[in-house]
Amino acid sequence: MERADRGLAYMLQYENIAWFEDGAVRILDRRCYPRTVAFVTCRRYGEVAQAIRDMVTQSAGPYTAAAMGMALAAYECRDRSEAEQRAFLQQAADCISTARPTTAKRMRQICKTMLEAAEAAWASGENVAEAIKARAIEANNSRYSKIATMATYLVEQFPQNGTIMTQCFAETIVGMMLKEAKQKGKTFRIFCPETRPYFQGARLTATVCYEMGFDVTVITDNMPAFVLQREHVDVFTSAADAICMDGHVINKVGTFQIAIAANYLGVPYYVTGAPDLVHPSVRDVKIEFRDPDFVLQAMGVRTARDGVKGYYPAFDVTPPELVRGVVTDRGIFAPTDLWRYAELGGIGEYEVVV
Amino acid sequence: MERADRGLAYMLQYENIAWFEDGAVRILDRRCYPRTVAFVTCRRYGEVAQAIRDMVTQSAGPYTAAAMGMALAAYECRDRSEAEQRAFLQQAADCISTARPTTAKRMRQICKTMLEAAEAAWASGENVAEAIKARAIEANNSRYSKIATMATYLVEQFPQNGTIMTQCFAETIVGMMLKEAKQKGKTFRIFCPETRPYFQGARLTATVCYEMGFDVTVITDNMPAFVLQREHVDVFTSAADAICMDGHVINKVGTFQIAIAANYLGVPYYVTGAPDLVHPSVRDVKIEFRDPDFVLQAMGVRTARDGVKGYYPAFDVTPPELVRGVVTDRGIFAPTDLWRYAELGGIGEYEVVV
Repeated sequence: MERADRGLAYMLQYENIAWFEDGAVRILDRRCYPRTVAFVTCRRYGEVAQAIRDMVTQSAGPYTAAAMGMALAAYECRDRSEAEQRAFLQQAADCISTARPTTAKRMRQICKTMLEAAEAAWASGENVAEAIKARAIEANNSRYSKIATMATYLVEQFPQNGTIMTQCFAETIVGMMLKEAKQKGKTFRIFCPETRPYFQGARLTATVCYEMGFDVTVITDNMPAFVLQREHVDVFTSAADAICMDGHVINKVGTFQIAIAANYLGVPYYVTGAPDLVHPSVRDVKIEFRDPDFVLQAMGVRTARDGVKGYYPAFDVTPPELVRGVVTDRGIFAPTDLWRYAELGGIGEYEVVV
Repeated sequence: MERADRGLAYMLQYENIAWFEDGAVRILDRRCYPRTVAFVTCRRYGEVAQAIRDMVTQSAGPYTAAAMGMALAAYECRDRSEAEQRAFLQQAADCISTARPTTAKRMRQICKTMLEAAEAAWASGENVAEAIKARAIEANNSRYSKIATMATYLVEQFPQNGTIMTQCFAETIVGMMLKEAKQKGKTFRIFCPETRPYFQGARLTATVCYEMGFDVTVITDNMPAFVLQREHVDVFTSAADAICMDGHVINKVGTFQIAIAANYLGVPYYVTGAPDLVHPSVRDVKIEFRDPDFVLQAMGVRTARDGVKGYYPAFDVTPPELVRGVVTDRGIFAPTDLWRYAELGGIGEYEVVV
């Protein structure tokens, strides 16, 4: 494998994100990547849910892990009656899809698709676990192809030589965007805010950008406004954990304040992803609060003294007025015009295009 | 000493910031406070300049360190002729005041005041080092009294029970503000962004607030906009490394983007400090860029992989349109009306009121 594609492969290929084989799901541990390339092995679906909860994988990683976790659940109950298997898989779907609150509705969609694959397998006498795994791969491949299309629309918004700012780890779209840019002969500097408290920007995004051969600079999370202005950033772009049909964008905490600064400084913000029928409005989203103590350390070292409180919202909400365009696989839409995306061809059940 | 005042004493009293005695300047090492209470001992003025450059002390700490460093320089050359001493002190002033570029003009003012104290000592036959030390203490005491006045104006802007957001470590004004609030019976929650890459907010500001008995919460630097909105912050306040006469505020990087978010969300931003005659306009300020690799680690642990670049502006610039008021010892001024501060009584030579 070429050096320039190694990062992309590790971070983007589902084989490395989460993979069901030999009665276990192996998940790439993004909490320590790239310092250590390690995998968490789950032998029960509950361990997959726990791994998602514990941030072993994030961004779009949990969607693949969930699908593979359903295959594992089918493997776990393979010797029971069909009725018992059905009940077992339903229980697994409930457990896995509620691992993290903000993405629960999207996770439920994925688990539902996997349950349908199981029904088809029972009807035809196939191996249920393998049928679910095949459906998970098929869904991922369909997603990758949509994201590749999305990347072409996004890169059209970049100048021939310019400066881009990202936020957090935007999963597949980061790699696809860089691949597309190379093909179109566009070069740009990339500024990645480090994304506290897990440093996904410093560890994951910057690694993919560097290994794809781009000029990449990590900044701390208090620097985006300064950099947008001083370094003449052309485009701010992020993916999203959800894009509500009313144009509100849910993404890693910090997106909101970069979008405010970008708007103030006249830098367009493009978000990539499919609008989300399970979230008609921002009121349908629950922001996840995680262990507050986690913000009182950095890379495992305590920062504040005892007695000081922490506070850890995992996501924030960017209103449509701060979004220049929603870059989808069907073109770029105004954030106030997302229902037209659905009209152009319906929204599939497994439309997680982070 | 009461527990509630211990943090205040450590962080605010000049004896602990920097102190000349027995031929050495001892400086509280803020890089490891509060985990470790340690002092850096400087036996030559060049070591004082180096300590300032290395961030042993920051915020207003370098101003006291500079003045005490001048006393040390006088001690170093005590056995030479008056002419040689004068040249030596002039050299020390040049070295110390240029330790960090953004504050060089203010530092030069302080060193100039200390040179005047030396001239007076030579004229009257006093011990030069002790005369400079006495002048440093006198200047600090005058500064403390001005900041106490400033605190009364600032606290008037706070509700009886509310929520405040700070930025970085605002030195003396933080302690004075909390003391004043207690006296007025005002209580509030305080949110402190952690202030990467040195974590001054998490380590210094939060410690003072906690030890003064307040409810204090540390957040990462990507959370201010979310917190301003969700936690209904009443006032955002910071000190400044310089307040230009044209109303631009130079402060720790991150201030600009919090001010943009505060403005967008309708939260007033009050900056404390004296307008700065040595900086008539923002064009007179040079933003310091520090070692870029420092943003690629956190608490000593590397975050990004090799090959990824860093970028480290120490300060940023907030334009007057984002500042609700400049809280001075002569009242609260509009950022566009700062020359009136000077008309109300002149600006002294050692007006570093961070």
